[in-house]
Amino acid sequence: MSDRTSPVDDDEALAFHKEPTPGKLGMSATKPMATQRDLSLAYSPGVAAPVKAIAEDPEKVYDYTSKGNMVAVISNGTAILGLGDLGAMASKPVMEGKAVLFKRFADIDAVDIEVETSDPDEFVDCVARFGHTFGGINLEDIKGPDCFMIEQRLREKLDIPVFHDDQHGTAIISAAGIINACHLTGRDIADLKVVVNGAGAAGIAVLELLKAMGVSAKNAILCDSRGTIYQGREDGMNQWKAAHAAPTDARTLAEALDGADCFLGLSVAGAVDEAMVRSMAAEPIIFAMANPDPEIRPEAVRKIRRDAIMATGRSDYPNQVNNVLGFPYIFRGALDVRARTINEEMKIAAANALAELARQDVPDEVAAAYHGQRPFFGKDYIIPSPFDPRLISFVPPRVAKAAVDSGVARKPISDMGGYKAGLARRLDPTAALLQRIHGAVEGKGKRIVFAEGEEPSVIRAAYAFQSQDLGEAILVGREEQTKANMRLVGVPEDSIRIVNARLSSRNAH
Amino acid sequence: MSDRTSPVDDDEALAFHKEPTPGKLGMSATKPMATQRDLSLAYSPGVAAPVKAIAEDPEKVYDYTSKGNMVAVISNGTAILGLGDLGAMASKPVMEGKAVLFKRFADIDAVDIEVETSDPDEFVDCVARFGHTFGGINLEDIKGPDCFMIEQRLREKLDIPVFHDDQHGTAIISAAGIINACHLTGRDIADLKVVVNGAGAAGIAVLELLKAMGVSAKNAILCDSRGTIYQGREDGMNQWKAAHAAPTDARTLAEALDGADCFLGLSVAGAVDEAMVRSMAAEPIIFAMANPDPEIRPEAVRKIRRDAIMATGRSDYPNQVNNVLGFPYIFRGALDVRARTINEEMKIAAANALAELARQDVPDEVAAAYHGQRPFFGKDYIIPSPFDPRLISFVPPRVAKAAVDSGVARKPISDMGGYKAGLARRLDPTAALLQRIHGAVEGKGKRIVFAEGEEPSVIRAAYAFQSQDLGEAILVGREEQTKANMRLVGVPEDSIRIVNARLSSRNAH
Repeated sequence: MSDRTSPVDDDEALAFHKEPTPGKLGMSATKPMATQRDLSLAYSPGVAAPVKAIAEDPEKVYDYTSKGNMVAVISNGTAILGLGDLGAMASKPVMEGKAVLFKRFADIDAVDIEVETSDPDEFVDCVARFGHTFGGINLEDIKGPDCFMIEQRLREKLDIPVFHDDQHGTAIISAAGIINACHLTGRDIADLKVVVNGAGAAGIAVLELLKAMGVSAKNAILCDSRGTIYQGREDGMNQWKAAHAAPTDARTLAEALDGADCFLGLSVAGAVDEAMVRSMAAEPIIFAMANPDPEIRPEAVRKIRRDAIMATGRSDYPNQVNNVLGFPYIFRGALDVRARTINEEMKIAAANALAELARQDVPDEVAAAYHGQRPFFGKDYIIPSPFDPRLISFVPPRVAKAAVDSGVARKPISDMGGYKAGLARRLDPTAALLQRIHGAVEGKGKRIVFAEGEEPSVIRAAYAFQSQDLGEAILVGREEQTKANMRLVGVPEDSIRIVNARLSSRNAH
Repeated sequence: MSDRTSPVDDDEALAFHKEPTPGKLGMSATKPMATQRDLSLAYSPGVAAPVKAIAEDPEKVYDYTSKGNMVAVISNGTAILGLGDLGAMASKPVMEGKAVLFKRFADIDAVDIEVETSDPDEFVDCVARFGHTFGGINLEDIKGPDCFMIEQRLREKLDIPVFHDDQHGTAIISAAGIINACHLTGRDIADLKVVVNGAGAAGIAVLELLKAMGVSAKNAILCDSRGTIYQGREDGMNQWKAAHAAPTDARTLAEALDGADCFLGLSVAGAVDEAMVRSMAAEPIIFAMANPDPEIRPEAVRKIRRDAIMATGRSDYPNQVNNVLGFPYIFRGALDVRARTINEEMKIAAANALAELARQDVPDEVAAAYHGQRPFFGKDYIIPSPFDPRLISFVPPRVAKAAVDSGVARKPISDMGGYKAGLARRLDPTAALLQRIHGAVEGKGKRIVFAEGEEPSVIRAAYAFQSQDLGEAILVGREEQTKANMRLVGVPEDSIRIVNARLSSRNAH
């Protein structure tokens, strides 16, 4: 996967957002709305029955409404990307973008909501009042330290997952990478000497998750722009930094990095120099995640430390710490067990699942994304590709199980095998297509002729159409070739009628 | 259109809401999200350009986000349907239902938001903070008189349309019916003697709109359960009722109706008896809109007053006052000119447009909904059918023009003809289907065989597919019949290849 082919320029990005319709987000009805009877069921008078059912038992809202698959992406725009406080409405393209990523990667229906206040109390009051509309809340681009208080109080007020992705998303993906870097270098996380540079939302969350996973407080040093956060420091402190003040004599980042195993940068370009990298332990683990320009460039590190394992936030270098590997699947698992929250156990389960997936051989889709150069687990592949199609069936079950085991799930999963299979189907693009075709032909029992019937994707679509009892599918193609490909994609040979088209066209060209 | 075939029972309604997925509402991406490059445009780094553009010019949020086609359907559940105050979450099926009606009838992307408070101030504070996320706000099922204050204050705080449909929707549709009833009976609205029974949200809104349209205050009497609201009455009053206190000696509904031209009931079943109906003027106009059971049944009125014009809120009698005739098209017009509000001028324009449409000959779709009994303008057809496909292109332009003329539009429409054509296309079900097919065949130049090629709907789909340059369409059908239907639907005869299928099936049943 590479962005190097051609950069994204502003004009192209603006045109993408504007044409053919403004924005990136649309809504759809998931139930038929064609006839008077449909409307009578979807609205008055049919809607009274679910209303009464929910009034009697509030949990029924998960059965009769879309809540259980809905996530709100909420911001006040006080820390948009790397651009700062540009106001709530300016953050809307980011939040819409996040919402469509939820859909694209985990089939979660997400909507953005911008809250116009920079006052944390007002923000909390507002979101707490409407939050239960949704099955979960993804907070985004809220400045620190407000974000800590906002997330904490909303978690207390709402019995649904509330997750500030800028904190925990980055923490979980980088933790997955650290697990694998330890794996490759034979390190035990309990002995890992860690330096985190950047004491904002992401930096503190990264350190907290690593500590929850076993990094010892005595081996972990947090730094900000003034240097190390040591026990007794008074300048530029707040309660969240103070919680991580380290028993160390180091006062500068350079002193902290001397002999360290692991650097995690959530700070600014150029924060790390070559001398610092040289002073680190053998096989140093360097996650330079400042965006768009890392704390130190991978090529600079490679020049002086060929033993380093390196990750960045960029898609044009190996080992991208990309949040899209996390939030879709974490929420998917949380929603599927109706979790009351996303706790440390679920985050650690997600990190471990991502790490494990990176250690497995990759499927063809990933090889294709790497232009045929199939990546293998190793220093340049410690984090899975966002286009690995196994993510959807691999990560959410781990998160869901952790939710159940830690007692925050309202609805345990009884059939884990069925659940995994259902997850894989969620991203099958044929499903939505078939629903539309079905709508168009208005009723069951129609025949649909699938041209190009030899192609595996068409075979899958035809099989799905027929097995969903939408009508009869007919594949047009040479029989032997079609059957061979049916076997290839695991569709029973005799399940679909094959016709070898002899079309007598009277006005063929 | 009739519900008489089979009633909607609770089990069916619950199953409709629960299966195959809970709820009625889903979300979709409106931009491609397939490749790394798509993601780079939709999210980081591409999203930075629209963020900066909006930060510089807040109006650009309409260009680069989905705001301009998004409506929030918001309730606190204090007056759900006829069921009362069952709480915000119990209202969710209703609000989701309303959201999908927006989509179904006007291609507006709507989401529901439930606000958990019965305190009007808290409600206003909450909605005012996030309201600008959307292009408009539809308030729903909020109890009176709170709803008056809530709507008024939100209209002041937000520069987008805020519209409490329980008030204005009913008012606009019944006003359309009143216009046509006057038309049929040769009355001038300025002389119309009106009695409105029910001084809740809808009743007061109906009376206000009728007065704005020319009904004289001296000819209009509002009644509640205690009788007429006369000047000087003190019991059971509030500021909204007081504004309509009439200079009348009548103290009961029966006294008020004596000699009245027009009754509008927004009260309870049985509020009107035969003696009252007998006492009304010649050719009385009786809108008995209590739901589900009207103030008096049409068959009871017909028995004693064959000269009456009657409307109800039910779909199984003629002249249904159905809000779905209003809100989708009013918001459509308002959104399309980026209106700052929905004002009286726009409501009156909508009522006049609906009345005018009912006076025109109906298209085939409407005749079909009436089981082939084509309705004509007259006493039993003073309000258009919700399934009249001309609504989308007929009503919004009137609303939009009224917004422009009254100075509340941010973006006037320069090409009204093009706008109307675009409106008609919005509900073309083939458009969305084609987009999906296109996505599935992954690229241009594919052939799509359209089975059942003689059917007009299929011909339209095939033509649209081809004219959107998605590939070659092939219609399977008898040539003459197919060509005849192509002419019928206005598709050039030679534009699509027709094949007469002679399928040599080797494993036909």
